[in-house]
Amino acid sequence: MKIETKIVLIGAGNVATQLGIALTGAGYHISQVYSPTKRSASLLAKKVKAAAITDLAKVDEDASVYIIAVKDDAITDVAKQLRLKDRVVAHTSGSVSMDVLKNVSKNYGVFYPLLTFTKDKKVDFKTVPICIEGSNKATSTTLQYFAKSISSNVQMINSDQRKVIHLAAVFACNFSNHMYAVAESILKKNKLSLDILKPLIEETALKIRNESPAKVQTGPAVRGDKKTMEGHLKMLKKNKDLSAIYKLVSKHIPASK
Amino acid sequence: MKIETKIVLIGAGNVATQLGIALTGAGYHISQVYSPTKRSASLLAKKVKAAAITDLAKVDEDASVYIIAVKDDAITDVAKQLRLKDRVVAHTSGSVSMDVLKNVSKNYGVFYPLLTFTKDKKVDFKTVPICIEGSNKATSTTLQYFAKSISSNVQMINSDQRKVIHLAAVFACNFSNHMYAVAESILKKNKLSLDILKPLIEETALKIRNESPAKVQTGPAVRGDKKTMEGHLKMLKKNKDLSAIYKLVSKHIPASK
Repeated sequence: MKIETKIVLIGAGNVATQLGIALTGAGYHISQVYSPTKRSASLLAKKVKAAAITDLAKVDEDASVYIIAVKDDAITDVAKQLRLKDRVVAHTSGSVSMDVLKNVSKNYGVFYPLLTFTKDKKVDFKTVPICIEGSNKATSTTLQYFAKSISSNVQMINSDQRKVIHLAAVFACNFSNHMYAVAESILKKNKLSLDILKPLIEETALKIRNESPAKVQTGPAVRGDKKTMEGHLKMLKKNKDLSAIYKLVSKHIPASK
Repeated sequence: MKIETKIVLIGAGNVATQLGIALTGAGYHISQVYSPTKRSASLLAKKVKAAAITDLAKVDEDASVYIIAVKDDAITDVAKQLRLKDRVVAHTSGSVSMDVLKNVSKNYGVFYPLLTFTKDKKVDFKTVPICIEGSNKATSTTLQYFAKSISSNVQMINSDQRKVIHLAAVFACNFSNHMYAVAESILKKNKLSLDILKPLIEETALKIRNESPAKVQTGPAVRGDKKTMEGHLKMLKKNKDLSAIYKLVSKHIPASK
């Protein structure tokens, strides 16, 4: 039996879109989608069969859960304009403290899905870790309950832990992706395609499922292969930034000999 | 019908092991495995039903193909000790020029499989790009022929292109893996496990199958979110090296606004 929970989505970006689709798919009713931009609000509202609003004063005060999925630096602004008494309200940010919501409701928390979102690509939430935090037991339980309806990997994570996870994710995800981008730019300059590296990139990510990444490190730096590193720096010599990144990261990889 | 090709493997490390297993699986006969270390030579020789040798002077002069899969800086040394007339001989390195083999045989080349190898994990070669280069048409054709027996992704790549690919692979693969290692160390210090980031890491690698990584970049740097970046640097302040990497990589990610 599906619980009859009315949800209001504050935000219409990547996270709001993917969460909205997943929650609708799990049988929840999204009553409103808010975005300051009419077009964004309407676009997502249509997808999840909700009403689009562009004014926070018009937020339905009757919903059970309010999800604030806006940019990190907009959360405080949104929080200032919302007064929801005892309704459950949660933001979806990895780096913002739970307490920015303390004046919005006495039942506030965090609903942080640990995945990289793109608006147009549908996300399979089942394996996505969702980090939950609540201002009290009841709020945690409510947020956990509906996180579990879309993911089988729901964890209680406090604000300090969440900040650490977010920082680690910047290295593991954002910086890795930038390394792919650097590789693509190097290849493109030489009329080669990133396609040739894609099996290697995927293998590298899958390799750490059961192994510590430090243990499976490969490449010239871990081998202490100075000749190869010098050759690479010669190839990068016209690009000061890339040379600096190459040197710094190589230096930080502990040589195995 | 399998061609009766006798192969000698010079080397017994990760690449030699995985290639040996794949080639044996494809029906080739490996007659000898060379390693200066008796134990390594015997270990691989047993796996591929070959004879183990520790002296290059004892290399079978009768084989059709000789694969030199030793560390980059040992290739020249090995080449000095081998004289194989017109036998096909190839090394497996991404960063070493083909010409280091020119005195070994008139039929020399490169057989560079673009994958990250671990001794104990069996590799499915079918999708592994193998980069082939030959000193002449006949050598290229021979090397291509037997590369195609283990992979469906065989490409002709000259020495200059191969060096570019190898450099790009250091960023896309070695440096990405180190970013995973950094994430793990940050999490471990706070008694958290890398497990929570693994779905994110895999999604990041898979996301670029059909998209340019520059276009799907996420995180505080691309958003120009200075507040979050300052918060992260505060968390890293006791670690000068990581702070420097964080700053340098963030600076190199073009902000989208």
